[in-house]
Amino acid sequence: MKFCSECGSKVVLRIPEGDTLPRYICSNCHAIHYQNPKVIVGCIPEWENKILLCKRAIAPHRGKWTLPAGFMENNETLAQGATRETFEEANARVEIRELYAIYSLPHISQVYLLFQAKLLDLDFSPGIESLEVRLFGEQEIPWDDIAFRVIHDPLKRYLKERQHGQPEPHMGIIDKRQD
Amino acid sequence: MKFCSECGSKVVLRIPEGDTLPRYICSNCHAIHYQNPKVIVGCIPEWENKILLCKRAIAPHRGKWTLPAGFMENNETLAQGATRETFEEANARVEIRELYAIYSLPHISQVYLLFQAKLLDLDFSPGIESLEVRLFGEQEIPWDDIAFRVIHDPLKRYLKERQHGQPEPHMGIIDKRQD
Repeated sequence: MKFCSECGSKVVLRIPEGDTLPRYICSNCHAIHYQNPKVIVGCIPEWENKILLCKRAIAPHRGKWTLPAGFMENNETLAQGATRETFEEANARVEIRELYAIYSLPHISQVYLLFQAKLLDLDFSPGIESLEVRLFGEQEIPWDDIAFRVIHDPLKRYLKERQHGQPEPHMGIIDKRQD
Repeated sequence: MKFCSECGSKVVLRIPEGDTLPRYICSNCHAIHYQNPKVIVGCIPEWENKILLCKRAIAPHRGKWTLPAGFMENNETLAQGATRETFEEANARVEIRELYAIYSLPHISQVYLLFQAKLLDLDFSPGIESLEVRLFGEQEIPWDDIAFRVIHDPLKRYLKERQHGQPEPHMGIIDKRQD
């Protein structure tokens, strides 16, 4: 951030009075521009024990597989966001169920929330951000070609827990500053 | 948003190619400025079945009571955010436990996450955003003077569930566009 989005003047980075962290502050109108983590919402769409994955058509990790997920938008609920992302990436209709995984990714200031979901029909196809969309049986999942660890880890855990009953929601942290 | 934070030129509001929602786009450098929901993290600090509440020193709802909670910051985890907010508002040390409540507030584009927490000692005092901080027994909680419904509703549910055993995490929606 270099300029104030309210008045167009230059911003400076300093700690406002009564605050503890540096913020971008307008040198002219003194507006404080806070920057906060972003929420990514997605789901694990299931159809007769198979999982719907999308092959990414965009960077990063073009050509790798992922669950449908993306940035939550203003004025929607978490479940609406997960439903919308699944439709955008896979033209697929899902019924969102329990929340399964919540991950903090502090190195990139993101929070991931992944829901369990029931795929409602087989009429799916790649959206603009996907090259291919298909159902994978548990033994077919391309573990070495999953785009993100924040998708790989909870999906692996989910399938393992599913073998022994109802998967249990969990929280996780992926911090690449510590890896 | 009126000006581009990258180059200081005027922005226009329109739907970018391949997108579905209007975004602020710079008329000069064409940077797209996304706006997304913010995360509020907080906790329910307990000490021998009593709950720590803070009386707000700032708008909105100055003088009303609330749980320690506030905007999650970049580069922290959810639990770190809840711990930090509790220290800032109540100078209190807590051990963050399970996530208890996740609320979508789509009318103001916020997601609230409230954790169960154990207050670690009685050495607490008002932070700069609080007028007063105190422990309330279950029968003492000032229900008519709780600052926000997103605090009131999960706290009430928590205390009710606690009477019958371990409180169960839940998701909720508060949408004032529909009230």
